[in-house]
Amino acid sequence: MKTPPDHYLALVKKGQDIYTLKSISTLLGWDQETYMPQKGLGLRSLQKQYLESLIHKEVTSESLQDLLSPLIHLETGKLTHVEGLSLEQQGAIKLWHKEVVKAKKLPDLFVETFAKAASETVAVWAEAKKASDFPVFLPHLEKMVSLSKQRADYLGYEDHPYDALLDEYEPEMKVATLDKLFAGLKPFLIDLTKKCHKTSLDTHFLYGEFDEQKVLNLDHLLLKAIGFNEGAYRLDVSMHPFCVGCHPTDVRMTALVKTNDLLSGNLLTVLHEGGHGLYEQGLDTTFFGTPICEYLSMGIHESQSKFWECFVGRSLPFWKHFYPLLQKNFPQNFSSVPLNTFYQSINLVKPSLIRIYADEVTYSLHVILRYELEKSLIEGSLAVKDIPHVWNEKMSTYLGITPPTAREGCLQDIHWAWGLFGYFPSYVLGNLYAAQFHHTLRSTYPDSDERLAQGQLSFMTDWLRKHVHRYGKLYSPDDLVRRATGSPLSEKFFKNYLTQKYQ
Amino acid sequence: MKTPPDHYLALVKKGQDIYTLKSISTLLGWDQETYMPQKGLGLRSLQKQYLESLIHKEVTSESLQDLLSPLIHLETGKLTHVEGLSLEQQGAIKLWHKEVVKAKKLPDLFVETFAKAASETVAVWAEAKKASDFPVFLPHLEKMVSLSKQRADYLGYEDHPYDALLDEYEPEMKVATLDKLFAGLKPFLIDLTKKCHKTSLDTHFLYGEFDEQKVLNLDHLLLKAIGFNEGAYRLDVSMHPFCVGCHPTDVRMTALVKTNDLLSGNLLTVLHEGGHGLYEQGLDTTFFGTPICEYLSMGIHESQSKFWECFVGRSLPFWKHFYPLLQKNFPQNFSSVPLNTFYQSINLVKPSLIRIYADEVTYSLHVILRYELEKSLIEGSLAVKDIPHVWNEKMSTYLGITPPTAREGCLQDIHWAWGLFGYFPSYVLGNLYAAQFHHTLRSTYPDSDERLAQGQLSFMTDWLRKHVHRYGKLYSPDDLVRRATGSPLSEKFFKNYLTQKYQ
Repeated sequence: MKTPPDHYLALVKKGQDIYTLKSISTLLGWDQETYMPQKGLGLRSLQKQYLESLIHKEVTSESLQDLLSPLIHLETGKLTHVEGLSLEQQGAIKLWHKEVVKAKKLPDLFVETFAKAASETVAVWAEAKKASDFPVFLPHLEKMVSLSKQRADYLGYEDHPYDALLDEYEPEMKVATLDKLFAGLKPFLIDLTKKCHKTSLDTHFLYGEFDEQKVLNLDHLLLKAIGFNEGAYRLDVSMHPFCVGCHPTDVRMTALVKTNDLLSGNLLTVLHEGGHGLYEQGLDTTFFGTPICEYLSMGIHESQSKFWECFVGRSLPFWKHFYPLLQKNFPQNFSSVPLNTFYQSINLVKPSLIRIYADEVTYSLHVILRYELEKSLIEGSLAVKDIPHVWNEKMSTYLGITPPTAREGCLQDIHWAWGLFGYFPSYVLGNLYAAQFHHTLRSTYPDSDERLAQGQLSFMTDWLRKHVHRYGKLYSPDDLVRRATGSPLSEKFFKNYLTQKYQ
Repeated sequence: MKTPPDHYLALVKKGQDIYTLKSISTLLGWDQETYMPQKGLGLRSLQKQYLESLIHKEVTSESLQDLLSPLIHLETGKLTHVEGLSLEQQGAIKLWHKEVVKAKKLPDLFVETFAKAASETVAVWAEAKKASDFPVFLPHLEKMVSLSKQRADYLGYEDHPYDALLDEYEPEMKVATLDKLFAGLKPFLIDLTKKCHKTSLDTHFLYGEFDEQKVLNLDHLLLKAIGFNEGAYRLDVSMHPFCVGCHPTDVRMTALVKTNDLLSGNLLTVLHEGGHGLYEQGLDTTFFGTPICEYLSMGIHESQSKFWECFVGRSLPFWKHFYPLLQKNFPQNFSSVPLNTFYQSINLVKPSLIRIYADEVTYSLHVILRYELEKSLIEGSLAVKDIPHVWNEKMSTYLGITPPTAREGCLQDIHWAWGLFGYFPSYVLGNLYAAQFHHTLRSTYPDSDERLAQGQLSFMTDWLRKHVHRYGKLYSPDDLVRRATGSPLSEKFFKNYLTQKYQ
């Protein structure tokens, strides 16, 4: 065991302080969506502003740079001191340096302006969506696009301004790579959608009134089954399901318990958020306070949720074990429905207007559409006012349907209102990563279907912990995937998975 | 309207920042007692330490003193600039100055040592209480007493070291005043307890299984009835009921909803915490960020909870209106019980071992006992090892009963483990203040019993808001009581109230 030099230990102490502040901010966000009294919003805004500004101040502080400078060359980003430092410690220094450099590229005033505009735009978006009124949203969205272009300029890029934004969610990802991946994926998905879109199935048994306590018990049973650390998480109720990790010992997820759609509305959502949560729990606390104990990227995060929700939670072997339990708990819905019918009913492919309700096949087309629009907006080849038209055209081309209103079209997502350009691709990348992990896992364990059918899930959890979770930000997503699966990221694994499942 | 000078406005901005930090700390404390996953305690400790240290740093910062110095003489505490400043603004400056002076008296290292020792002592106390083992607790309690003496020395005092500690909870209160108040109260209470202690009443109807949702509905109905601002509070479940105010628009209370003791276990607790919460909601947000928008003292806080729990919630007129509702909701318990029997059953006087379960008459004797011990410990006339003996002796003299174990005796409260010497008197002061407010209110509204019997409570809420809540810390407790009631604080109002009710 090497002994890290004092400089490094002082840096970790500072890192822990910054992590602590971020974790408080995370908790405030969770509280706002779950328990905060509605009139407490004014105070909450002050609290969040104060913390965000303090975090920014700490990250860009002279004192952090003074701690970094004996270890890394601040200009070149080359390590100047590696003796006694492990691979993880060297990685942490580089990642801290990257964060500092990035934070310093964005002027304080710009960060403030961006946050204020986003906050206003979200409020306008909510009204515009309600009224299905794009023109009301237009000037605000134009401002967010313009600010995002400015953001890309501040952050800097080599080939495409969108690369700068992508990097915030998916380190080192580029437009060139995405274009290649999506070019291989899009025609395949359009084609598969057409092929699948003929099944007609009576799925009424999925809906009904479900006893809330029974639903909650099943939720916790599923979380335990996929390997959750008890006493280190919460599952609460909120309008929209989400998961945040304050720390591997304090992970908070939400789902609707009162729902008339038991699978998509609750159980599969809990597996989805559970996948996110398991990733947070799997980060290595040995490196607490360093970026090695932080999640790698939005795409990798999404791969974990998709893995459990789709690759496991929508699979036949999984339900071979769990379906009898579902039947026992809700006999009025499921006792007379055979497993195979149930399995088909939760895997129906049907083009639909709303991304978050889309199936495994069409989902990525929704996202690719958004990526294409974002890229054009940021490079300036698409005017914001033309979004509704282009959106509808693409929906028609990709899925054969056209949104009757903007609410069901380009106003459906909150992301652009927040200025989160560059985020959407994570959702497809999540599918691609998950498929690649899933393929490797099944090759490693040829009996994985049998294990799943017996309710054994821990071999999967263990594999993900070992090959994904514990590394945090140590490797780039691309490196992590190569190390874990032996191949560079490719869309072929997802295509193979879908082909096998749906053809 | 006077225009405050820029110096003052800059000070308010700083005050708002410090308030914001404190409100975050409050929220973390609430979360810890309600929803935090048990294993999240480690992170929570880091978060709280970080915030407490930051608050201390801000309060003792040069920058705060620089903001104060044009407005107040830092040495003498005399205002140097009053032009354009309202009474509240002048008060705020003096109070900020007092806080800074106090914070600077306590060395950083001492604050840290105290907090660490308290945290350890609380853990030992929990174990010692479980095992009813005072000797295990002894060395730790000795340390807390010794640190509290040191604290009194740091803070400074004129007559009695305990005065320094008292001032932290009840500004300007002195041992001399308390001794006089309690000397007038103690023999009266001992005597009244003996006189009352003969009633025998079958109260089994108070206990049973109560539908949780119905209980919760009643809770919110009561909170609404006493004037709660909807959408600006929460009522949750925790092991021990409490109330914290993050801000007048975000007040958080807890109570047990699942209880077999509907009155003491829930409804009267909700009125108690509701009294605290109503005070927090009644602070004047015009002065947000200044001490004028902060509660005055623990005694005044307790007066508000006692007012609603006891002076209203245990009164006959109140239940004239609400008892039929109780009967309607829980007919199996109350339908055949006459109002008068119910009223007597919730006002039984009977000496008991545990303070928090004590009735209105004996409660203050429990507290006076603790005050007498604390005072002797701090002045050094009582050794910590002699506590159990003296405790039992006093219990026998005051209430005629002796605890069979330390768990039911001197180990029952958490306060000393936290080093909260000086806090206990607030509980009796709360009764005295409440009685005095109650007396004035009834003199102002001679028909108050009739109003209560009709379910009208808002005239009381309005009076309390007008005469107590809105002033925050502007006046000392003594001044506030004089202004609100026309008389200095006296025990006679409480004695009169008890005499009328129990004789």
